[in-house]
Amino acid sequence: MRVKLLAHTPEPDNLVAAAARLCYSGADIATIKMRLQGDKAASMVAKLLALGHESPLEHVSFTFGIEGVSRALSHQLVRHRMASYSQQSQRYVAEEDFEFITPPTIADSAEAGREFLAAIGAIRRAYSSLLLHVPAEDARYVLPNACATKLVATLNARSLYNFFALRCCRRAQWEIRALAWEMLRLVRDVAPHVFDQAGPGCLSVHGCSEGQMSCGSPYSKSELDGGKDEPDRRA
Amino acid sequence: MRVKLLAHTPEPDNLVAAAARLCYSGADIATIKMRLQGDKAASMVAKLLALGHESPLEHVSFTFGIEGVSRALSHQLVRHRMASYSQQSQRYVAEEDFEFITPPTIADSAEAGREFLAAIGAIRRAYSSLLLHVPAEDARYVLPNACATKLVATLNARSLYNFFALRCCRRAQWEIRALAWEMLRLVRDVAPHVFDQAGPGCLSVHGCSEGQMSCGSPYSKSELDGGKDEPDRRA
Amino acid sequence: MRVKLLAHTPEPDNLVAAAARLCYSGADIATIKMRLQGDKAASMVAKLLALGHESPLEHVSFTFGIEGVSRALSHQLVRHRMASYSQQSQRYVAEEDFEFITPPTIADSAEAGREFLAAIGAIRRAYSSLLLHVPAEDARYVLPNACATKLVATLNARSLYNFFALRCCRRAQWEIRALAWEMLRLVRDVAPHVFDQAGPGCLSVHGCSEGQMSCGSPYSKSELDGGKDEPDRRA
Amino acid sequence: MRVKLLAHTPEPDNLVAAAARLCYSGADIATIKMRLQGDKAASMVAKLLALGHESPLEHVSFTFGIEGVSRALSHQLVRHRMASYSQQSQRYVAEEDFEFITPPTIADSAEAGREFLAAIGAIRRAYSSLLLHVPAEDARYVLPNACATKLVATLNARSLYNFFALRCCRRAQWEIRALAWEMLRLVRDVAPHVFDQAGPGCLSVHGCSEGQMSCGSPYSKSELDGGKDEPDRRA
Repeated sequence: MRVKLLAHTPEPDNLVAAAARLCYSGADIATIKMRLQGDKAASMVAKLLALGHESPLEHVSFTFGIEGVSRALSHQLVRHRMASYSQQSQRYVAEEDFEFITPPTIADSAEAGREFLAAIGAIRRAYSSLLLHVPAEDARYVLPNACATKLVATLNARSLYNFFALRCCRRAQWEIRALAWEMLRLVRDVAPHVFDQAGPGCLSVHGCSEGQMSCGSPYSKSELDGGKDEPDRRA
Repeated sequence: MRVKLLAHTPEPDNLVAAAARLCYSGADIATIKMRLQGDKAASMVAKLLALGHESPLEHVSFTFGIEGVSRALSHQLVRHRMASYSQQSQRYVAEEDFEFITPPTIADSAEAGREFLAAIGAIRRAYSSLLLHVPAEDARYVLPNACATKLVATLNARSLYNFFALRCCRRAQWEIRALAWEMLRLVRDVAPHVFDQAGPGCLSVHGCSEGQMSCGSPYSKSELDGGKDEPDRRA
Repeated sequence: MRVKLLAHTPEPDNLVAAAARLCYSGADIATIKMRLQGDKAASMVAKLLALGHESPLEHVSFTFGIEGVSRALSHQLVRHRMASYSQQSQRYVAEEDFEFITPPTIADSAEAGREFLAAIGAIRRAYSSLLLHVPAEDARYVLPNACATKLVATLNARSLYNFFALRCCRRAQWEIRALAWEMLRLVRDVAPHVFDQAGPGCLSVHGCSEGQMSCGSPYSKSELDGGKDEPDRRA
Repeated sequence: MRVKLLAHTPEPDNLVAAAARLCYSGADIATIKMRLQGDKAASMVAKLLALGHESPLEHVSFTFGIEGVSRALSHQLVRHRMASYSQQSQRYVAEEDFEFITPPTIADSAEAGREFLAAIGAIRRAYSSLLLHVPAEDARYVLPNACATKLVATLNARSLYNFFALRCCRRAQWEIRALAWEMLRLVRDVAPHVFDQAGPGCLSVHGCSEGQMSCGSPYSKSELDGGKDEPDRRA
């Protein structure tokens, strides 16, 4: 999995703070923006998050380049509708030596690993043969969920809050969970205040939303801040 | 492919007509609704469509049960974000004898057909073996795009107009095109006036949107009305 | 304020239950729907809400006719973007004897009431005079927020949950709060199970979202069920 | 009216071009981005627009500070739902000497101008009196549509295309049309290729969408490019 933050709205903390301030102020926008530099932006954003006033978070958006993830993951990812996607097409791009993603549970089992690799090999051969007879868009019916894909995805900070709450969660599948944690790390680097409360539900203001299906082992705040000590994403 | 219209807003023509009329009338809503029965609703809706005033179409929604379609199709379908989906999960439902979709080009070629069936067989065996070692959510990495899935999908009439324009089009893949034409037939049965201008771009008011990539062979209006004479969906 | 439920997806409990069940079942949709009649639908929906699994709620939508509300209210209402609106236009419908909404605090104060009525009178005269010189779309610049408007609004159950959480809340303005409680009453009549957990944040599963701005006096569940004993909407 | 482009996704042409290219390429994202500098991005974007392939336009967003516009305009503006807004609240910010917007048709008529100013004066006095008795959120019921407001608005390029098509149109009201043309000028400055085909429907690829309600006098391309020679916005 290779994830890169390709672009984002500049100075996100300042912009979110100014938009939030505008709602309750008689001052003009330029004045508000000017006043909300540095620490003042940070404390305005903190106040905003404490109040559950989420709409100003929508003004800043983040664009990710995502490669080496499975089509199983991309099918889950594009279910997040408050987002924009451009994805490599299997209709137009033939993938004779397609890269594939191996689930850790399979990699960790000698027998499962053998079965998996043998199946991938059989699929590759079938796909190449099919390409001799039918268009790529039809040959791809034999390609597996494991097949790697590439996307450009853009989400605003409010939508990312929701994405992180659901997908950083231990109940999310390991692959999209690893992606979510990596995206979280990337945006916290460039917008630490905006994303100060972002993370799995158990670390965000409202708490776990899984109800009776809760995993029972919430992340701790230190895991969020830990960088290297990040939670085991396969758990 | 099995497609059923599970539910829809009752009396869609009347509701769309009343909502449209409201914008330009001083009368109250009950009076407007009462006046817009039968032919009057039909002519109000026709006027609306002629003016390109699409927003009243959003008030009526249509819920489809869709089965026996591939995961290749469902990945395309859920890219339509102005819609609601519930899809059978491959994480929670194991599919040892999964149903699969065979593209017509493969079915029509003896050699491709053989290759395809052999690959599906190999995948099935690998999937069953993997299930002995790993959870279904990981074993499914070996499952193919051809694997059948089930969805409940709800779209309002405005979103359906857009869906039909893009997916009834000859440039759409055969499978989602067949689904789109079937959905179009189902909604035209219950809301003939609302969907009078719906169909592939070439049959709708604005015309083909494919620009230089146009297929060059627009559908004719009679194909839309023809029922049995529907266009060859594999073309 | 006159609010009417103009239309809704038929049998909402059954449809939501079937869509939810589909995600975790290998059975076909017709079988699932058939099995989920009456009490079984109710208990499936209850389970769904307990798990915070909200997406199946999107399959059912509700269309309201709303009249005798102010333009102050409609400006707030249309900020809910997961919804569809048709609103009477002030550009095309002249409103020489426009109906107007009087805030209870103004009605309750003799002096404020007098000031308010005098101002409305002056505005009406100015509007009528302006209509002699300029188009209605420009004359309306003098019309007040109090001016009554009419809308048709359609929201699905998931969006309604969010609308109720924010707008049934004591921190919402009295007028949209009265509208929200009335809409809640109407949908609970036709879809009691689907809306069993709906209401102001303090009565819903996640609790108050106002943080430090909380009103400090949560509604009690009995107020929700009480019908006549509904909370004072001006509080 | 004061409109400022507060922020935007950096290098919009390059990002849109890279996202579009990704769909049809086997190369990795970094390579694609690197290759699409300058003229190459421009020609990729041009190709994209010619094909009506709009989704990559969503990856770049633009944030505007808008001041000195009427509440009549803001009520129209927020009907564009593919957008994010933060607006100065009339509930929390008292407006005793509120700024107001005068429609040109009123300013141009001596009699209408007098009537209008007199009414604004009466409203101001009533508003100040009401503030002595009731909260600002209720006193504001007497405030007119003409009352000035401030917003921060963020839209992506695809949503802006739609906004410009509808609101640069001669059939839009003069005030939001002036706003739309000003926003168009601002984004064409920073993303000339991305917005090369943007403008009123009559100047965009699909043509006028007003059907039988067309104004009959389409803008000419030179008006779009003209800067100073911009169309009379009151027409």
